[in-house]
Amino acid sequence: MLLQSELLDFFNETRAQSELICSFLETEDYVVQPIVDVSPPKWHLGHTTWFFEEFVLKPYKNDYHLFDDHSAYVFNSYYESVGEKVIRTDRGNLSRPTVAWVYKYRNYVSKALKDFIESEELSPEILEVIEIGCHHEKQHQELLYTDIKYILGNNPLFPKYNDQFEENPIYDFPQEWISVEKGNYDIGHNNTDFCYDNELGRHTVYLADYQISNKLVTNKEYIEFIEAGGYKDVLLWHAEGWDWVNTNQISAPSYWHNIDGDWHQFTLQGLQKLILDAPLSHISYYEAFAFAQWKGLRLPTEQEWEVANSKFNWGSRWEWTESAYSPYPGYSKAPGALGEYNGKFMVNQKVLRGGSVATSNKQTRPTYRNFFHAPLRWQFTGIRLAK
Amino acid sequence: MLLQSELLDFFNETRAQSELICSFLETEDYVVQPIVDVSPPKWHLGHTTWFFEEFVLKPYKNDYHLFDDHSAYVFNSYYESVGEKVIRTDRGNLSRPTVAWVYKYRNYVSKALKDFIESEELSPEILEVIEIGCHHEKQHQELLYTDIKYILGNNPLFPKYNDQFEENPIYDFPQEWISVEKGNYDIGHNNTDFCYDNELGRHTVYLADYQISNKLVTNKEYIEFIEAGGYKDVLLWHAEGWDWVNTNQISAPSYWHNIDGDWHQFTLQGLQKLILDAPLSHISYYEAFAFAQWKGLRLPTEQEWEVANSKFNWGSRWEWTESAYSPYPGYSKAPGALGEYNGKFMVNQKVLRGGSVATSNKQTRPTYRNFFHAPLRWQFTGIRLAK
Amino acid sequence: MLLQSELLDFFNETRAQSELICSFLETEDYVVQPIVDVSPPKWHLGHTTWFFEEFVLKPYKNDYHLFDDHSAYVFNSYYESVGEKVIRTDRGNLSRPTVAWVYKYRNYVSKALKDFIESEELSPEILEVIEIGCHHEKQHQELLYTDIKYILGNNPLFPKYNDQFEENPIYDFPQEWISVEKGNYDIGHNNTDFCYDNELGRHTVYLADYQISNKLVTNKEYIEFIEAGGYKDVLLWHAEGWDWVNTNQISAPSYWHNIDGDWHQFTLQGLQKLILDAPLSHISYYEAFAFAQWKGLRLPTEQEWEVANSKFNWGSRWEWTESAYSPYPGYSKAPGALGEYNGKFMVNQKVLRGGSVATSNKQTRPTYRNFFHAPLRWQFTGIRLAK
Amino acid sequence: MLLQSELLDFFNETRAQSELICSFLETEDYVVQPIVDVSPPKWHLGHTTWFFEEFVLKPYKNDYHLFDDHSAYVFNSYYESVGEKVIRTDRGNLSRPTVAWVYKYRNYVSKALKDFIESEELSPEILEVIEIGCHHEKQHQELLYTDIKYILGNNPLFPKYNDQFEENPIYDFPQEWISVEKGNYDIGHNNTDFCYDNELGRHTVYLADYQISNKLVTNKEYIEFIEAGGYKDVLLWHAEGWDWVNTNQISAPSYWHNIDGDWHQFTLQGLQKLILDAPLSHISYYEAFAFAQWKGLRLPTEQEWEVANSKFNWGSRWEWTESAYSPYPGYSKAPGALGEYNGKFMVNQKVLRGGSVATSNKQTRPTYRNFFHAPLRWQFTGIRLAK
Ligand SMILES: [Fe+3]
Ligand SMILES: [Fe+3]
Ligand SMILES: [Fe+3]
Ligand SMILES: [Fe+3]
Repeated sequence: MLLQSELLDFFNETRAQSELICSFLETEDYVVQPIVDVSPPKWHLGHTTWFFEEFVLKPYKNDYHLFDDHSAYVFNSYYESVGEKVIRTDRGNLSRPTVAWVYKYRNYVSKALKDFIESEELSPEILEVIEIGCHHEKQHQELLYTDIKYILGNNPLFPKYNDQFEENPIYDFPQEWISVEKGNYDIGHNNTDFCYDNELGRHTVYLADYQISNKLVTNKEYIEFIEAGGYKDVLLWHAEGWDWVNTNQISAPSYWHNIDGDWHQFTLQGLQKLILDAPLSHISYYEAFAFAQWKGLRLPTEQEWEVANSKFNWGSRWEWTESAYSPYPGYSKAPGALGEYNGKFMVNQKVLRGGSVATSNKQTRPTYRNFFHAPLRWQFTGIRLAK
Repeated sequence: MLLQSELLDFFNETRAQSELICSFLETEDYVVQPIVDVSPPKWHLGHTTWFFEEFVLKPYKNDYHLFDDHSAYVFNSYYESVGEKVIRTDRGNLSRPTVAWVYKYRNYVSKALKDFIESEELSPEILEVIEIGCHHEKQHQELLYTDIKYILGNNPLFPKYNDQFEENPIYDFPQEWISVEKGNYDIGHNNTDFCYDNELGRHTVYLADYQISNKLVTNKEYIEFIEAGGYKDVLLWHAEGWDWVNTNQISAPSYWHNIDGDWHQFTLQGLQKLILDAPLSHISYYEAFAFAQWKGLRLPTEQEWEVANSKFNWGSRWEWTESAYSPYPGYSKAPGALGEYNGKFMVNQKVLRGGSVATSNKQTRPTYRNFFHAPLRWQFTGIRLAK
Repeated sequence: MLLQSELLDFFNETRAQSELICSFLETEDYVVQPIVDVSPPKWHLGHTTWFFEEFVLKPYKNDYHLFDDHSAYVFNSYYESVGEKVIRTDRGNLSRPTVAWVYKYRNYVSKALKDFIESEELSPEILEVIEIGCHHEKQHQELLYTDIKYILGNNPLFPKYNDQFEENPIYDFPQEWISVEKGNYDIGHNNTDFCYDNELGRHTVYLADYQISNKLVTNKEYIEFIEAGGYKDVLLWHAEGWDWVNTNQISAPSYWHNIDGDWHQFTLQGLQKLILDAPLSHISYYEAFAFAQWKGLRLPTEQEWEVANSKFNWGSRWEWTESAYSPYPGYSKAPGALGEYNGKFMVNQKVLRGGSVATSNKQTRPTYRNFFHAPLRWQFTGIRLAK
Repeated sequence: MLLQSELLDFFNETRAQSELICSFLETEDYVVQPIVDVSPPKWHLGHTTWFFEEFVLKPYKNDYHLFDDHSAYVFNSYYESVGEKVIRTDRGNLSRPTVAWVYKYRNYVSKALKDFIESEELSPEILEVIEIGCHHEKQHQELLYTDIKYILGNNPLFPKYNDQFEENPIYDFPQEWISVEKGNYDIGHNNTDFCYDNELGRHTVYLADYQISNKLVTNKEYIEFIEAGGYKDVLLWHAEGWDWVNTNQISAPSYWHNIDGDWHQFTLQGLQKLILDAPLSHISYYEAFAFAQWKGLRLPTEQEWEVANSKFNWGSRWEWTESAYSPYPGYSKAPGALGEYNGKFMVNQKVLRGGSVATSNKQTRPTYRNFFHAPLRWQFTGIRLAK
């Protein structure tokens, strides 16, 4: 756990970073919600602030006055035990509170929390909730990037976010197989520094011999799959993946545009020619699985990934694994609202490992378990193969 | 038809009025589209501008340069013959172009059009299209009011629009029946000044004896209907009205809120106690019909309304009639894109007559035929009874 | 009104006819409901029987014992005032009661009703309800034909119904225009013999000069429309018709199949080559309207149709009119359950006039007002043009 | 693998059993499909027959003549690689081929296959496909029971299937915990006799210490959960389980009816008073999980279940496990159509272990992996707890 003085720095840095991310937006960009999975940037800014007010200031700070009685209502999310929530699809229909209001709300809560940390010695319990709140905000920073990309990238004018954000590292080194021998391995977090409850309970697993790639699948390899008719061969797909392809008429990764025969990609730097040596991004689990089938290979399990992770570079794409998101042995949810966070999503989701170009470096650790529904593509998702 | 000099005034007044209406909004309010029938105010401002660019400047003005190549794409609407359109439900997902951009676009087009009117003598054909463009913008001004009301009135914070807009006149005069004798009557527009194609073709109809009320149904009378169980008596409703009531769990007009036993109404002035003597507003055709059934009366036809209109006051609510929206005898659509305007909607809609507190006075004339689908309630719609 | 002795014959003939229609079916054909508008033949047989039990035997016959307590529940329809109904889409999921049970139910009720007519002198009120019950059953006989056609014609094996049922008369006489002069005309039923409440209230209408075709549009003419790109020209269609065409990928009338370049049609006699000189059938109102637009003509109103009907042959197809289904002047629904019958459907439906090859001759009279939603095509619907 | 002579007996017994199951049905019961997961009994009989024709007789038997060219089309299922399929939801709309036809088809194929087995020595490859076909038919026998239960149990008349089928064993012995020590265990099928591809690849897993109940949860215990408000406590449910409960207004297991305060259950013997000591049945995975949460316990994984299975009785209910359905290490699908069988469903499904009162004894073995989507309840599903 962080010291109180370290926490203040962490808090200040976290709050500033969210605002830096949004500094490249127009007011209008803060408001819209083109699909249910994407939240308006305004909402992310308010919601992460509400978290500190609801779980730190309200219960623990003497004489704290709420900035506004309605804020909890509008910026609450899935924490249904706290109170009535705004239906998620409605977020994009709320023009009020305004962006200016949200920034005032942020400043008010940030100041109150800084005062709180600076003015008295806080109990470990309070320090822990504040640290969770910072990590929570960092998670939403990743969503800010991906949601902004969705909002801009689905606008017919293809406005760019800025010139600095670099999505596409060059992966021109050779592909190799890393071998791991069968045996018992320990995985999971050892709980010495911050992690989420779903990583806890370090435990033994038995793994058979396997090999895992040192390199993510590149755009170039994926074009081969497309050109070989991968999207049209039913035998490569899960039954529900095949339905998904046909219902949604999918024929390429998200953000790809074939303009006069040339593949382009919308990036946060705007619409560009596709970089062939960059790691593939914005594909669903169904596509990851079909690509692996086509190669005669497979996706790793999350256990295989974690055991081998020190032997390859990762961090530019969230990597779909074959593992469904389930509780680790001995998992039990924390009591109360914070405890709802992870356990309630442990059905019908796939685990992703690694982290992406949009992930805060505080959120990338070998034990981190990200999870999404199989068809989702708005995150920076990619493929690492195993056999 | 207006003289060229009159048209300039009309144009200037119209353009200024749209901007005045929007001057009470926050930037965020311009962007959202909570339901498909409501368009973002930003879109109305751009779309009415696009109309002048597309149908006047582009075809007729020498050396006119488009403000921006993409504008037609984003601000086109149902005129599918002009080019590909943005799907209507998508309007609320477009954060760009920004509000500031839209105002620049308006200024550019307004200036170009003023120059055009001032600098040369225009043909009657051009003058007519400009006049249509002004009426088109005035129609969208009414939608601006009703769409703004929807956007603010469905926000949990209930923000008010301004303090000036008065929705609710007091109707405390006695109800009386106006009798009209059977016989042949002529209805429709005589085409001496501006009207829409659907009003044209003045023609004879035969009407039997009838009586029509001098007064719109008030909120007080409608509360009696609610309290008598009107929403729960299947025998009062059309079969599809009954489905609508139950599927959507309707139990009061739109914008009504029962707070601790007292009826309140969201208005453009904010949430208020319901004014009992004000004319009822925001009800569907199904509700209008059911109320009439409950009274043992009926709605007038549009012919009955038009023949008697000089004998009663109207103009605060659009009045649902029993008439389905059909072409008048001899109706034929004008060729080309402008001609698409009315004929293509002549199925499964109900005619409304009169005009509302949100209607421009240029749009309220005895022959004007408004039309909406039976379940829609976001307009200022009311009930006048007949027997 | 019929004499009591005539009514007995009418009843016997009606009951026998329903059973004759079904005598060509396999047991399985009685059970299924492929779309919501089509009811299982078993249901029609039970429902028409329930009508006599519910509205005649139960209220009027002393000591009548219900055949079974559950029958009302399963065979009730939209008469919601009588009791809870089985949701219409569920009819096809009910394997019980069996077909054999339904025939026993029919026999029991038919016998009880015959006894009732033969054994005592019935009041005019009772006689009227029995006569309505017979007409009701005759209406369901038409639905039996069209629903059976749908059930068989949407089976991939294309089983034929029988060899006798002739759908396609030959229309090889020349097309001519019948002129009607402007003036006041009376339409509606004079109430001397049986009719439905929606035909009543003979009343005056004023009609302008018009011309109406002596001949229904043929398959040959409709092929010209298809080949001229009629289904692809947005300008010919209502906005909602255009949506319907595209959403459902409509490119020909229902039951048409293009097999190796030749148009075929599924008929009750099985799959056949399309007969070019037969009147077009199984088209929606949207298609009827678009065809008329393409010809530069229009559909007649129901008033125009009724005034001119004696001057042309009709009866092989239900003819879409331009008229929306509305109450005649002075219409008021009858009290109680029977009265629900017509008024509750008077919104968003189009009137059809004439009658089809499937219509009982008791149901074809010049004043009869049939009505369907604009997209429906499973009836024998056709086009007569006007100008 | 079975000897050829044993296989003949197995084949004969299997075919006779399907027909015995259906011998209690009315013709109408064979036809309907009330929900997409339930297939008409007629379809099961035809489909299992088609399997033998398609995969045995057609490829391997000289001079075999298809019974009918259309059969493959109508009775194919998800094996999309074989040819175009009838959409699953359409099965219940097909009145043809008739039940009588299906029995003729069965007899024809059964006779041809018996002749084939009796007349020549078959290769191991052929014997294997025939054996798979028998197991395939036995799987469909279980579906026959559950689908028939759904068809009859959702009919408002609640017809019983027969008096013999016993669903509800009495579980009145005491509940005890069986302890298993941590360590490496081998699971999966050893491939000495018949199994499915998803069981293959016997492999090592490491398990931590755990305890598993000797007894399934009973109806009595589940009533306690209901009465304690289990369906109303959001904290017990997965997020998507909570949505499911509220969207579908679930408040009890499937087939339960509270009649005047007493719980009843529809069984294949008809509607009965609920037997309190019988094992709970017809609950979704969401309900199984919520019940375990309420108890402060959990569901076992499929590995835990398999390792401990010899220490408790099982076989009356399919037992939901916490395990998502994933491939075993080294799993690769068999080439061709038969190989599609299992792998394509390995996403978003939960594994169930054990077997139910409807399961053929050939299908209940400790390694058998059944799988269903989380919300499904029409199978005989139950709960065994672990900790
Ligand atoms: Fe959050
Ligand atoms: Fe417009
Ligand atoms: Fe009926
Ligand atoms: Fe199968």
